[in-house]
Amino acid sequence: MRHILSILTKNETGVISRVSNLFSGRGYSIESITASTTLDKEHSKITIVTTGDEKVIEQITKQLHRLIPIIKITEMKPDNSICHELMFVKIKVKDDDRAEIIKLIELFGAKILNISQREYIIQAVGDENHIKSLIELLKPIGIKEIICSGAVAIGRQ
Amino acid sequence: MRHILSILTKNETGVISRVSNLFSGRGYSIESITASTTLDKEHSKITIVTTGDEKVIEQITKQLHRLIPIIKITEMKPDNSICHELMFVKIKVKDDDRAEIIKLIELFGAKILNISQREYIIQAVGDENHIKSLIELLKPIGIKEIICSGAVAIGRQ
Repeated sequence: MRHILSILTKNETGVISRVSNLFSGRGYSIESITASTTLDKEHSKITIVTTGDEKVIEQITKQLHRLIPIIKITEMKPDNSICHELMFVKIKVKDDDRAEIIKLIELFGAKILNISQREYIIQAVGDENHIKSLIELLKPIGIKEIICSGAVAIGRQ
Repeated sequence: MRHILSILTKNETGVISRVSNLFSGRGYSIESITASTTLDKEHSKITIVTTGDEKVIEQITKQLHRLIPIIKITEMKPDNSICHELMFVKIKVKDDDRAEIIKLIELFGAKILNISQREYIIQAVGDENHIKSLIELLKPIGIKEIICSGAVAIGRQ
């Protein structure tokens, strides 16, 4: 089971290390992590995607709370939050594929950021399924490189 | 000076900790970090925004290379890369502000993801200046919450 944890911490040196150390030290997976300051420069928001059953998530949450600089941990669920990621994908472009690529980009609300004779850099934003579907459809065309931000989540309320 | 490091690593448990430990252990700042798997599931890509002069960046790069699972480190510069971040911003909405908000969203190529009577959740993607400008213009309207992915960078070549 995939879980998204949104962790509000004090913006202290080493807080990202301490959080990621807790995961690696105890063998919890980090599928993705994003961390950045918030509007209040004294706080940071860390979003971690991890896997495990409910018990594991409960353990992680408890252990994270024992780390001093953590203010709040929220598990972001599909019914109460929006969870998107940003992806850059560099694809090989042959003349025959151009129409198909443009169609896919429109369908997925994506954007071409860079055009060279043989390559496009495409930017796409969306939830896990949106991003995965686009990747699957671009694969036969020819993907050279993919870079994802990892999930970012915000509560709807 | 702000620097963006793109770090390709083997996707081993603890690699994010090891990278972030190196920064915190030696007092290098992490302004933002994003980490996620790549197309090749055996690799991860970590993007770190840090500050320091050229000497500091050189030191960081050398020390990172000493960490076993690191495959490649590239400093992403504006002339050879695209560097964007994803932002969610929750704003208070009063009737008088709706037209102004819609105008800003169009101007910034942003998107409203969630509408309730008194709040919008807006999604925006762009470089540091783009995101900062939007934040400045939304501040007088009333920002309740901001969540950013941190920078994600891809080389143009």
